[in-house]
Amino acid sequence: MTQSLKAGQHQFRSGCSISRTLELFGDKWTLLVVRDLMWHGKHTFQELQRSDEHVPSNILSQRLRRLMDWGLLSRTPYQDRPVRYAYHLTGKGRSLEPVLLQVMAWGHENLDGGLYDPETGVSKS
Amino acid sequence: MTQSLKAGQHQFRSGCSISRTLELFGDKWTLLVVRDLMWHGKHTFQELQRSDEHVPSNILSQRLRRLMDWGLLSRTPYQDRPVRYAYHLTGKGRSLEPVLLQVMAWGHENLDGGLYDPETGVSKS
Repeated sequence: MTQSLKAGQHQFRSGCSISRTLELFGDKWTLLVVRDLMWHGKHTFQELQRSDEHVPSNILSQRLRRLMDWGLLSRTPYQDRPVRYAYHLTGKGRSLEPVLLQVMAWGHENLDGGLYDPETGVSKS
Repeated sequence: MTQSLKAGQHQFRSGCSISRTLELFGDKWTLLVVRDLMWHGKHTFQELQRSDEHVPSNILSQRLRRLMDWGLLSRTPYQDRPVRYAYHLTGKGRSLEPVLLQVMAWGHENLDGGLYDPETGVSKS
């Protein structure tokens, strides 16, 4: 799976929904980008790059492109010369929230990670 | 992240539960192995290798090792000469079921994948 992964021209490995979802999100970075867009008010490339996990910029570019290709993300220019974009999840992108919540709950319970409450914006460890 | 990833000696990238979970499961194969162990009655290496997604055997070996290192899987020999093992999820491994269900639901809704009901064992597309 590379940055050229696109809806429409993509052949899935199988009909399994889990397998299909992993073809989009089965890596160590994409759901972190979704997390920052969904919950942490990060919408520019620079903001998204500044996370505790230090996503490499080439990976961030690829993942933003892939999320747009699949209709999970849209972008609008907020500056000219050089043009810069603000990224926002579409409704389809926001529908990943229950997945994020379950993944977070498992990591909290089993890997001693923190817990974020999207209702209140409060994080606890 | 490689096959040498082990609990205890592992330094997580950050305190985020999502990031931590992705350090174990952020690839295209591990959750498929968990799926087959959890729902499809596959418990030997040979059975696990026979899936629609054709997991390469070196990847399957690594992932089984990693799941054991993290206490999500245990194995017991069922044959000598050559020794062969049966793999079973531990309670901690089985606690991934809500994650699988959400990932499946998203893929069904958005990527036109099938739906499996673990209560009845019935799959539908």
